[in-house]
Amino acid sequence: MAQGLKVLTAVLPQDVKLETKEYDLGAKRWHRTGETLPDAELEALKQHDAILLGAIGDPTVPSGVLERGLLLKLRFAFDHFVNLRPSKLFPNTATPLAGRPDIDFVVVREGTEGPYTGNGGSLRTGTPAEVATEVSVNTAYGVERVVRDAYERANARPRKKLTLVHKNNVLVYAGHMWKNIFDRVGQEYPDVTTDYLHVDAATIFLVTQPERFDVIVTDNLFGDILTDLAAAVTGGIGLAASGNINPTGAFPSMFEPVHGSAPDIAGTGKADPTATILSVALLLRHLGFEEQAARIEAEVATDLEARDGAARTTDAIGDAIAARVAG
Amino acid sequence: MAQGLKVLTAVLPQDVKLETKEYDLGAKRWHRTGETLPDAELEALKQHDAILLGAIGDPTVPSGVLERGLLLKLRFAFDHFVNLRPSKLFPNTATPLAGRPDIDFVVVREGTEGPYTGNGGSLRTGTPAEVATEVSVNTAYGVERVVRDAYERANARPRKKLTLVHKNNVLVYAGHMWKNIFDRVGQEYPDVTTDYLHVDAATIFLVTQPERFDVIVTDNLFGDILTDLAAAVTGGIGLAASGNINPTGAFPSMFEPVHGSAPDIAGTGKADPTATILSVALLLRHLGFEEQAARIEAEVATDLEARDGAARTTDAIGDAIAARVAG
Ligand SMILES: CC(C)[C@H](C(=O)O)[C@@H](O)C(=O)O
Ligand SMILES: CC(C)[C@H](C(=O)O)[C@@H](O)C(=O)O
Repeated sequence: MAQGLKVLTAVLPQDVKLETKEYDLGAKRWHRTGETLPDAELEALKQHDAILLGAIGDPTVPSGVLERGLLLKLRFAFDHFVNLRPSKLFPNTATPLAGRPDIDFVVVREGTEGPYTGNGGSLRTGTPAEVATEVSVNTAYGVERVVRDAYERANARPRKKLTLVHKNNVLVYAGHMWKNIFDRVGQEYPDVTTDYLHVDAATIFLVTQPERFDVIVTDNLFGDILTDLAAAVTGGIGLAASGNINPTGAFPSMFEPVHGSAPDIAGTGKADPTATILSVALLLRHLGFEEQAARIEAEVATDLEARDGAARTTDAIGDAIAARVAG
Repeated sequence: MAQGLKVLTAVLPQDVKLETKEYDLGAKRWHRTGETLPDAELEALKQHDAILLGAIGDPTVPSGVLERGLLLKLRFAFDHFVNLRPSKLFPNTATPLAGRPDIDFVVVREGTEGPYTGNGGSLRTGTPAEVATEVSVNTAYGVERVVRDAYERANARPRKKLTLVHKNNVLVYAGHMWKNIFDRVGQEYPDVTTDYLHVDAATIFLVTQPERFDVIVTDNLFGDILTDLAAAVTGGIGLAASGNINPTGAFPSMFEPVHGSAPDIAGTGKADPTATILSVALLLRHLGFEEQAARIEAEVATDLEARDGAARTTDAIGDAIAARVAG
């Protein structure tokens, strides 16, 4: 996070006044107070233009507490229906794929519906007669707005190709609704080429033909899975940035690395801050600082290209990129 | 399918009498009669020791009709709760992964619950106010039996390692039930090393460290996704076999290639029958013909090793493997 702020400060023009406020949320706070995101802080966060979120998660906190109490709470409270995750294979980064295919696509993951709504339950918990359910909730309202956003993004890219990923041969109710809306909205974008893939087939293409993708639109859970896989094939989640975006501007959008908090190396200076720095670029683009966003992305690419495998500290990487973008 | 039966016939000892009966199901039948799997045929299928299923699916049939009316109907009617999918990187096969890691694991995918139950619906269908839901149903009964099966399989393998894959930081009701049952049953298998991964992280490891997996147990949908990805990294779905198993023997188990029907090359002699032939091996193992199963697997490996990239017809591959296993 410190490196992200360093680069943000360095890249901004002199006449732009940056005001930042740090909110102490996450594992330490939860241990101290039992709170994840109190209402007063949720309210206060609304005042900001954007949020930069540090990676959360800690083995000492029960699974789900911070994820649902903090991260998902923010995504839902601020109606971040566009979860934007670009995947690009930068030069000189390690991909597990043979032949270094040309990868440059973006996933538009729905962020406020699907199996993430917390709509489920457990009956006779802990007994041999337990039944546990999870309900995926999908609305035409929610699907249409994210599908439309994806068409806009596809239409603005040179290749203009949009792929819908779902599983409509099994999840027929949600899947057919997604497909029907996808087809209907598509009529308004005659220049965009469209494609449909079942999620299982999409994972195959992500490793055998990732160059076929330009923009992918998909539901919350499939997007979660595909973007981790996408990050893995483009050099690892150490480089993957994301934006939780409310395109209407009604609430602040939030930017975060896709990776977790890596508690095993926290404070050792070994963490790669690149994903956070690239998230700062997405944040700047969202706020209209396109030139600064592009400069960060270009300088990250240059920095990656210059890496010779020698270990650099978190600080050293942040310093190097900050110096470049300021230049 | 013809090649699978050819190899099955060739490998069986002289004194084993093989009786086969062909059922005409699938796209052609549906077009002719509008039926997928009539009750009389479902009843008749119960009389068999095992079922070998040809790949289904056809672009001329609406998505979901054959999948749910035939394939899933059989899995559910015959309570195929163990969907067994081995993944092995055979010699001389193309993997998209650099460095050809050593891959040899098996996924035990739950086959009768989760989001596959058809439990969902759509309200105000086709209108801007539509709501579509999909319910993942999980029972302690259903989870415990598949988890136990997975422990048995892990315990019988040299590495004795079992990984549970779920998403219990978001799907907390189902996820926690799976994890609790996994931990409790694990106490009966002190020699098995266990591990838990979220599904998104599991896809990363499948491409960056597939050698870490020995046996994976997971739910129906996550298993669908992971096994297609696993097939992709081990040389493609042309080689991936699967068993839909009812270990109690109450109903016949069913064996099928993981791939679809490839309607674009049907009848051209270009389809690789290897996945069906390996499914025959799983069928034989299930019926107690371990030696014959192992022989098919070994001869498939030899056949793959001998391939020099020259195109061979479906028939030629079947003939070659049949000749080897008979030898
Ligand atoms: C931490 C978890 C709740 C989260 C998700 O599932 O969305 C993460 O995996 C992500 O992709 O941002
Ligand atoms: C065809 C489809 C219903 C099926 C599934 O989702 O189970 C297939 O993808 C599989 O993996 O066997």
